[in-house]
Amino acid sequence: MPNPTACILIIGNEVLSGRTRDANIQFLATELGALGIPVREVRIIPDDPLTIIGTVNAVRRIYTHVFTTGGIGPTHDDITSECIARAFSVPWEPHPVAWQRMADYYAKQTPPGDFNEARQRMATMPRGCVLIENEATIAPGFSVENVHVMAGVPRIMQSMFRALAPRLERGQAIVSATVHADGVFEGGIAAALTGVQLAHPNLDIGSYPYFRPLPVRGGVALVAKGTDADDVARAADEIEALLIDAGGVAVRGEPVTD
Amino acid sequence: MPNPTACILIIGNEVLSGRTRDANIQFLATELGALGIPVREVRIIPDDPLTIIGTVNAVRRIYTHVFTTGGIGPTHDDITSECIARAFSVPWEPHPVAWQRMADYYAKQTPPGDFNEARQRMATMPRGCVLIENEATIAPGFSVENVHVMAGVPRIMQSMFRALAPRLERGQAIVSATVHADGVFEGGIAAALTGVQLAHPNLDIGSYPYFRPLPVRGGVALVAKGTDADDVARAADEIEALLIDAGGVAVRGEPVTD
Repeated sequence: MPNPTACILIIGNEVLSGRTRDANIQFLATELGALGIPVREVRIIPDDPLTIIGTVNAVRRIYTHVFTTGGIGPTHDDITSECIARAFSVPWEPHPVAWQRMADYYAKQTPPGDFNEARQRMATMPRGCVLIENEATIAPGFSVENVHVMAGVPRIMQSMFRALAPRLERGQAIVSATVHADGVFEGGIAAALTGVQLAHPNLDIGSYPYFRPLPVRGGVALVAKGTDADDVARAADEIEALLIDAGGVAVRGEPVTD
Repeated sequence: MPNPTACILIIGNEVLSGRTRDANIQFLATELGALGIPVREVRIIPDDPLTIIGTVNAVRRIYTHVFTTGGIGPTHDDITSECIARAFSVPWEPHPVAWQRMADYYAKQTPPGDFNEARQRMATMPRGCVLIENEATIAPGFSVENVHVMAGVPRIMQSMFRALAPRLERGQAIVSATVHADGVFEGGIAAALTGVQLAHPNLDIGSYPYFRPLPVRGGVALVAKGTDADDVARAADEIEALLIDAGGVAVRGEPVTD
């Protein structure tokens, strides 16, 4: 059976403007790969209702899971939650559990906090959603069918993902092996590497040049990736051999470039 | 006249797998914003021909410019160039200038390099494209109509973008102002901030919580952004006032959180 698939939607003007460098894609891609739910696409979109609704409805039909980050706070630019309700054509309404929990939380603060209209928005959710708990804040995320709605702040998003992960049906974990060699460059090994790819059609064979200050110059890191660990190991052996043939000292693992 | 718009396409399995943390989005978003060509969408897609062709053809019709990074090297997984030719239904053929330059380059190396089939692929391009020069390597990028095809390695991509930028018609530069305050949280200022957004309908007003180790806890950074510098300055004054009303010490600029 093929693996389930994932799409990540990063919702936020701050990433599109360059103000913020996204920190969630790499975390989610790595974690989901380990669960056998490889990420097939990422889209970064603005805080615009029709864009959010249209994109959610496009990708939730293509991929097994959609993971959104951003736009579930209390301010006017946090519109993800109501857009998800509109995408699924369900009411956006107080979630009884989340509402009670947040009301209690603010009442117990010293001095008592104000569970005001802005904070109430964070307890207002699409009807029928399932909460995604988190240990970092009082406000939960939620899932509607295959769309999982999480915070944009990395610390909170990661806590939500840890709560969500056990609910996701896993595929076969993606296994990878990397071999690198200083002083070997892509143009000299491309033909041999094509041969490795053709011999292992179920694997992804990737080639990534790296650079270092002179006089070392850098080299190339070759990655074999797939769900069959034995196949990955055989490909890595062939990659090691071709790097040695090219005059390199083949080293298992990623190069250190910093 | 409204500003031109941009879409960034990051092409590469290595970003989707989490192996590589993208470094190009923030650079391009910042540079394009300064040119008045705001980025409206980013998509990260795999090295898969039909996905690349379909995505390029979808976004090039929506946005003024499309900037791609990745997949123009010499190895089997570098398929961006031929996919762009297929997207535009033009032949993929040797580019006379790029071909001659690369043949000369390898011939002049000591000992002479091999301008082999893999390297020839980097001089093979969609018919009618315009080269994007770069100072980092011998292999250029290229533009076909409004699609600008650049390398994925940040150093090379940045050099290509510097060569390309003067050819792009600029819009009005995006101006932004940030005011932050420790100890002020979004839930307490959301209503007042909505008022600022309503009073400045042509600006994007964004709210971004930040976190620091205890006992400071963090606070909120509020950003006003748009093409009218006076409007941005007035909004920043109002934001400063609302942060002071909320009991904060309002400070111009981004918070330091590291």
